[in-house]
Amino acid sequence: MYTGSLRRLIDELGRLPGIGQKSAQRIAFHLLKVPTEDARRLAEAIIEVKERTALCAICLNVADTGELCPICADDRRDTSVLCVVEDPRDIVAVERTSRFSGRYHVLHGALNPLEGVGPEQIRVTELLRRLEPERVQEVILCTNPNLEGEATALYLGRLLAPLGLTVTRIASGLPVGGDLEYADELTLGRALEGRRNVADGS
Amino acid sequence: MYTGSLRRLIDELGRLPGIGQKSAQRIAFHLLKVPTEDARRLAEAIIEVKERTALCAICLNVADTGELCPICADDRRDTSVLCVVEDPRDIVAVERTSRFSGRYHVLHGALNPLEGVGPEQIRVTELLRRLEPERVQEVILCTNPNLEGEATALYLGRLLAPLGLTVTRIASGLPVGGDLEYADELTLGRALEGRRNVADGS
Repeated sequence: MYTGSLRRLIDELGRLPGIGQKSAQRIAFHLLKVPTEDARRLAEAIIEVKERTALCAICLNVADTGELCPICADDRRDTSVLCVVEDPRDIVAVERTSRFSGRYHVLHGALNPLEGVGPEQIRVTELLRRLEPERVQEVILCTNPNLEGEATALYLGRLLAPLGLTVTRIASGLPVGGDLEYADELTLGRALEGRRNVADGS
Repeated sequence: MYTGSLRRLIDELGRLPGIGQKSAQRIAFHLLKVPTEDARRLAEAIIEVKERTALCAICLNVADTGELCPICADDRRDTSVLCVVEDPRDIVAVERTSRFSGRYHVLHGALNPLEGVGPEQIRVTELLRRLEPERVQEVILCTNPNLEGEATALYLGRLLAPLGLTVTRIASGLPVGGDLEYADELTLGRALEGRRNVADGS
């Protein structure tokens, strides 16, 4: 139905995550309508991100080629605490809380035996190699609270336990502003398990 | 939080229709991960669609630069019936029905006085200019069944009425497989208004 170059663009857009056939069409027609320079800016941004982006040599976060990521380059960050995340996007989520002033380590994945992702497929070796030179005192396991993330945290917890540093796991429980009535039983169960003293009884 | 080129890509992606901040991030990280040639293919498809795509000289559908669209180029199509649509995508929708073998005319919009879209802003002149040379017998007003589309159909109906050709409007009613219970009152009202004889009573 569509001509050659439009067809190709729709196909390429349809390969992007979360973009179905309808969205791909909508975006393609949008690009047809906008000024050429706008479309060209998008095309150039795509090329550029591939050319100029690499992984930070310290934490494996996304960084400009040949440079450290903004967090590792910031010498006000506390190097004794390491927050281990699955993905660079998780760093953004943690940073948004303003509750963490240490550095990160990006695993680039989580253990998933069914899909063939073992410890060798994620950046565990790089994590171990950092602990001594950076004099890390605490490792916070900040992987996702799902099956793969929990398995990864469990694995790393066992791996790091003998090394004599504090290893912690972020809390699971009811989201702030949440509602008991709508909580799933797993989350509520976790919230109960992780209950904390509010009064000493003394 | 993100480095220069990644930030720029996320911003550019976020300008696309239906792409929010989260989707833009997801797509950008996806592009970071895929092989460079895949990302380059997308970038090139964007540039190419701007360079090689123009409007069909007859119906204003999207076409390769300097050529007619596949439908106007097909000499088996009936030139005496013209289906007027708002957007090239609507042609795909009508073609999918396999119920129409005439040609199209793309208005590239619908009347919307509030946003300053009058008859001069959509391709009405081009429509009028086609009627005689192509010996059009029937014009099917196939604009959307919403406020703007109805206004456009009303306007075109009045404009074409004195020219001695058949002017029709697509039917509104319950969608096939729909449910009376969930029909909105406007649609159900239209379905009642447009009711058709199924038995003659004779």
